[in-house]
Amino acid sequence: MAGSSYGTIFKLTTFGESHGKAIGGVLDGVPSGIHLDLEKIQQDLNKRKPGQSEYTTSRAEDDKLIILSGLFQGKTLGTPIGFYIENTDQRSEDYADIAMAFRPSHADFTYTHKYGIRDPRGGGRSSARETACRVVAGSVAKQIVQSIGIQFSTYVCKVGGIEMVKNSFYTSPEIESSPIRCPELEISKKMEDLILSVKGEGDTVGGVIQCIIQGVPVGLGEPVFDKLHAELGKAMLSINATKGFEIGSGFASCEWRGSQHNDAFDSLTSTKTNNSGGIQGGISNGMPIHFKVAFKPVSTLLKEQETVNELGEKVIIKPGGRHDPCVVPRAVPIVESMAAIVILDFYLRNKSVTL
Amino acid sequence: MAGSSYGTIFKLTTFGESHGKAIGGVLDGVPSGIHLDLEKIQQDLNKRKPGQSEYTTSRAEDDKLIILSGLFQGKTLGTPIGFYIENTDQRSEDYADIAMAFRPSHADFTYTHKYGIRDPRGGGRSSARETACRVVAGSVAKQIVQSIGIQFSTYVCKVGGIEMVKNSFYTSPEIESSPIRCPELEISKKMEDLILSVKGEGDTVGGVIQCIIQGVPVGLGEPVFDKLHAELGKAMLSINATKGFEIGSGFASCEWRGSQHNDAFDSLTSTKTNNSGGIQGGISNGMPIHFKVAFKPVSTLLKEQETVNELGEKVIIKPGGRHDPCVVPRAVPIVESMAAIVILDFYLRNKSVTL
Amino acid sequence: MAGSSYGTIFKLTTFGESHGKAIGGVLDGVPSGIHLDLEKIQQDLNKRKPGQSEYTTSRAEDDKLIILSGLFQGKTLGTPIGFYIENTDQRSEDYADIAMAFRPSHADFTYTHKYGIRDPRGGGRSSARETACRVVAGSVAKQIVQSIGIQFSTYVCKVGGIEMVKNSFYTSPEIESSPIRCPELEISKKMEDLILSVKGEGDTVGGVIQCIIQGVPVGLGEPVFDKLHAELGKAMLSINATKGFEIGSGFASCEWRGSQHNDAFDSLTSTKTNNSGGIQGGISNGMPIHFKVAFKPVSTLLKEQETVNELGEKVIIKPGGRHDPCVVPRAVPIVESMAAIVILDFYLRNKSVTL
Amino acid sequence: MAGSSYGTIFKLTTFGESHGKAIGGVLDGVPSGIHLDLEKIQQDLNKRKPGQSEYTTSRAEDDKLIILSGLFQGKTLGTPIGFYIENTDQRSEDYADIAMAFRPSHADFTYTHKYGIRDPRGGGRSSARETACRVVAGSVAKQIVQSIGIQFSTYVCKVGGIEMVKNSFYTSPEIESSPIRCPELEISKKMEDLILSVKGEGDTVGGVIQCIIQGVPVGLGEPVFDKLHAELGKAMLSINATKGFEIGSGFASCEWRGSQHNDAFDSLTSTKTNNSGGIQGGISNGMPIHFKVAFKPVSTLLKEQETVNELGEKVIIKPGGRHDPCVVPRAVPIVESMAAIVILDFYLRNKSVTL
Repeated sequence: MAGSSYGTIFKLTTFGESHGKAIGGVLDGVPSGIHLDLEKIQQDLNKRKPGQSEYTTSRAEDDKLIILSGLFQGKTLGTPIGFYIENTDQRSEDYADIAMAFRPSHADFTYTHKYGIRDPRGGGRSSARETACRVVAGSVAKQIVQSIGIQFSTYVCKVGGIEMVKNSFYTSPEIESSPIRCPELEISKKMEDLILSVKGEGDTVGGVIQCIIQGVPVGLGEPVFDKLHAELGKAMLSINATKGFEIGSGFASCEWRGSQHNDAFDSLTSTKTNNSGGIQGGISNGMPIHFKVAFKPVSTLLKEQETVNELGEKVIIKPGGRHDPCVVPRAVPIVESMAAIVILDFYLRNKSVTL
Repeated sequence: MAGSSYGTIFKLTTFGESHGKAIGGVLDGVPSGIHLDLEKIQQDLNKRKPGQSEYTTSRAEDDKLIILSGLFQGKTLGTPIGFYIENTDQRSEDYADIAMAFRPSHADFTYTHKYGIRDPRGGGRSSARETACRVVAGSVAKQIVQSIGIQFSTYVCKVGGIEMVKNSFYTSPEIESSPIRCPELEISKKMEDLILSVKGEGDTVGGVIQCIIQGVPVGLGEPVFDKLHAELGKAMLSINATKGFEIGSGFASCEWRGSQHNDAFDSLTSTKTNNSGGIQGGISNGMPIHFKVAFKPVSTLLKEQETVNELGEKVIIKPGGRHDPCVVPRAVPIVESMAAIVILDFYLRNKSVTL
Repeated sequence: MAGSSYGTIFKLTTFGESHGKAIGGVLDGVPSGIHLDLEKIQQDLNKRKPGQSEYTTSRAEDDKLIILSGLFQGKTLGTPIGFYIENTDQRSEDYADIAMAFRPSHADFTYTHKYGIRDPRGGGRSSARETACRVVAGSVAKQIVQSIGIQFSTYVCKVGGIEMVKNSFYTSPEIESSPIRCPELEISKKMEDLILSVKGEGDTVGGVIQCIIQGVPVGLGEPVFDKLHAELGKAMLSINATKGFEIGSGFASCEWRGSQHNDAFDSLTSTKTNNSGGIQGGISNGMPIHFKVAFKPVSTLLKEQETVNELGEKVIIKPGGRHDPCVVPRAVPIVESMAAIVILDFYLRNKSVTL
Repeated sequence: MAGSSYGTIFKLTTFGESHGKAIGGVLDGVPSGIHLDLEKIQQDLNKRKPGQSEYTTSRAEDDKLIILSGLFQGKTLGTPIGFYIENTDQRSEDYADIAMAFRPSHADFTYTHKYGIRDPRGGGRSSARETACRVVAGSVAKQIVQSIGIQFSTYVCKVGGIEMVKNSFYTSPEIESSPIRCPELEISKKMEDLILSVKGEGDTVGGVIQCIIQGVPVGLGEPVFDKLHAELGKAMLSINATKGFEIGSGFASCEWRGSQHNDAFDSLTSTKTNNSGGIQGGISNGMPIHFKVAFKPVSTLLKEQETVNELGEKVIIKPGGRHDPCVVPRAVPIVESMAAIVILDFYLRNKSVTL
């Protein structure tokens, strides 16, 4: 009810404020007997962590994963995996006397009103730091579904007005060869230039992430309300700074005719086109699942901004720290993680469809 | 788990195949002591039903709501409201010997594989007929949240390539003055022409629906996973034929700079702009909530289409019945219903944030 | 949240007041492709219905099941089964001016305070009439789990101070040969005499029901909170008029020594004793599951009782209708139904323990 | 689904094996703005921990609570409270070559079959060590509900055949004055003697815990399936070693007549008797809630026992460590904790009954 859990069978519950002792979570419903490569999880965490390049924030934080339970001799026990990641950047100043300013387009204002109290240290619970826990869970999910042949390709397809040409299934090395995680390297170069230019102005810019999932068996997704793309949509829109979600042909589809848009079957295993994005009637049809997620420009600027404080007084703020001029490169592992969680959860849900 | 329920406190569970005896549902968690206007629910159902105009299907079905429980002398008891709507178009032919064709971009193929069995009469459970039950629940939710000052404005803002100019909060009479439910009447006229032209070709066309919600109190939405726009996204994407969802500035936001996109506070109750779409950090901020939903062109065509049947044999299908050349006019009450269900559910969830 | 649903994968949601139009429900998560014998469901309903003998209420109600969805040519579609049972005893008097009396040990008082409104016609939602819907769901569940070899034996083992000697797995014909559903016929005869005697005084008496389940595979039940006997306990205690639940050795176990109570393994498939009641650490161990449920004497008496009305005024009530002098004979199918629902739900849950 | 969470709004999720790195949990849905006394939580933990007296196990473990999130300057933020307790008794031996014995009436056998793998170090996840996390959550819940006047009295009322005479609302000092937590000190003395005698034989004995809750407002509990006593029953039966649950008059009620058992109202706020145990129709009626929980004798003996190992070979086991000759004194804080969790959860659920 309070929204800190995600999934039904494979279920992640997270906790933690950005500048408290630690963030962490519990991963329940993990199938038993599966060997987990902990090093891979740490690598996925490293893809999300700050300080990877000049295109993201240079704040260096060591997101070291500590697992407390659920494994024995490297294998899952079927019991919950409890874990945490220390906040190396804890703060304990006295905030008692400050009428805090509400940063524009942040959650400061809404948290204060909802709870009557908020953690004034950084974004607190609303900080995107929480997504590190999703990467832990997603990395576990990815290892599990890869064992049944499911593969992910997730990359940045747009930054500002600069857009990729060909959205195909790129490999991880192809994606990682770009600091932006945009596998068309010429396009990536343009994005890098744009981001540095925006950064130079103390400003930020948004982008779009593409995710393609291959090898998903037919039958994942539950009618009526828990359609596979509806749950993917929720999963993606729960990531900080997201503004939109498209499955398959997306918003563009509304300009098409049905006769152009329909995916004709050419056999019992494939369709000629894939405007459906691998999902029909909310259920996977065996074709690649592909969707896009829109991210707004980051709200934290290195520019002065006018706002009001808790007393309604007009104040000027200018954050002093490091920040992300563009969040999408670091959001790639988060999108992929949430996708993996959804796919594994629906895979497990689908097991009870027949006796 | 099987996906036939939606909501956490205010919870709808639906049942029914399109050509079985009836569709219906149970609405649990309805606050007690509220007078419901049953006539208004029927009116909302009528907005969704087939046969309203030449721009939608001319199949006339009388969606007569029958309520079985949960009310006493017109007031809600706090107990579940059970209801059903008869299918006047029931069929009972013998389908035993037919190798059924899989209609392109329908759910025939995925249902058959998921369940190993499907109701061959019409779309069965995958038919959009199920959404009538959502309109019942949504209409109840709307009446309840209207009593605390929350208002909805939902309309068609785009059909094919034709788009509205000014997306403001239109009244219901303004919207209903257009057969397309597009309140800019000149634009509506162009949409009508397009739809008739597409219909003449036996084809279909998609569109976009805009929903604006005013009067939502600050504080609705639950971090981290159950952000208000994430749940709105799921609710919308669970509607048949949807392909995309945008909150506030949506996909366009990725081309903006943060300094342009941030919504500056001008007081403790409002921001100068509303690119956030009334939601910050997943929690309503008191500004109008606005979002868009993309619908693909309907998959059922009055044209011949090539496909395969259950045996993998190539076959030609040409549906003989009436159909919707464009689904968005009838989808308006469905979008508004799902929005009302989400808002009421989060309103009730928010009551437990403090003791 | 509002408590009208039970189960996680195999999930029943019910609705209906005792004297409204109908009671009914939705059964979601039914595995697909299973042939259901609808006549058997009606037979189970008949075991619960009033008017079966002089030992239960003579009010004759025809609990005719109407199924609206979820089946095609007798087989489950994997989609929800919607159903209802008409209330033949509907009432529509004007209750506006009566300060209603609170019947002792009924839910009149608590409903009025909780909801600020109540259906004054009979027990409304608190009536045990709702349990008919559980019997529908339980009968479906029983048919499904019987197909994998799970069998139930449920009977009355105690009425007032009269108790059975040997609690073994009796067959349905053995149980049904007694009007009390107590398969030790001499004991049954004594129970019949006691009930008639109590009935003659306008009074009521309680009893205990024993349920034994054979053929349950090893592994059902989820640690930590959803232990199999914990969920069986909740299921049973949610039935009207229940006061206690015992698994295996129950309350008596506290007087034993561990060395007497421990169930020694004599092989990898069985233990010498079964004090555990077929469940160890919350998980079925393959031995028969056996538990007991205590029912209080029915609260509705054919005697004058002093009470207060809604204004706090002292009043005398004497119900005029027919009533059950002892509820346990009719509660047997309800206990068995809830047990079947729990077992099937955990069977389906257990499928996701491994990949 | 995997059973590691409890509660709906106020929700605890736990993790941890007995001899892994740590046990812990996440507590979500904690109302915001409440000052928590962390010292009190530690005190409650100390009541559960081993090594308190010669009547319980002498294994000394330091259950030191570490809270990672959810608090700022001592007050709840409304965000999840993440916490853990280190296992000081971690083990990392090589278990690879041992065919493990299944200890009688433990969960060794069922876990091995369910998961195909188990943590062989102590009870792993099935160990009662997990209940320390429940005490953390329960202690938080208790502090919160005490602020609205709800009080708990939980004590041992029976050990073996020795039983208390008068079950009234005893204060915490009265209860704590007995090492058995039995506030009738003469009875306590007899229990102590019995436990020492049983311990001398290397054997164990069971017992019964009584819990009385005062100050519960009218209206907590949700019909139909989530009746307050049904959920209390589940909560209690999910505690290790429990075999039975009784609300109010319990199993004894079946021997009474309805005219004796009915609780007559003597005003709008109270009944003359309280056989209902403070709950009518599944909803609290404002009278004290009272229930009993039966615990079997602990399965771990200091005696030789015959059993089988994973290969089905007969083996003799004799645990070498310390153990509890009687678990009920240490189970008192666990019962009280689960009761507090249930009451707070239903208190929060009840807030959405009206608009």
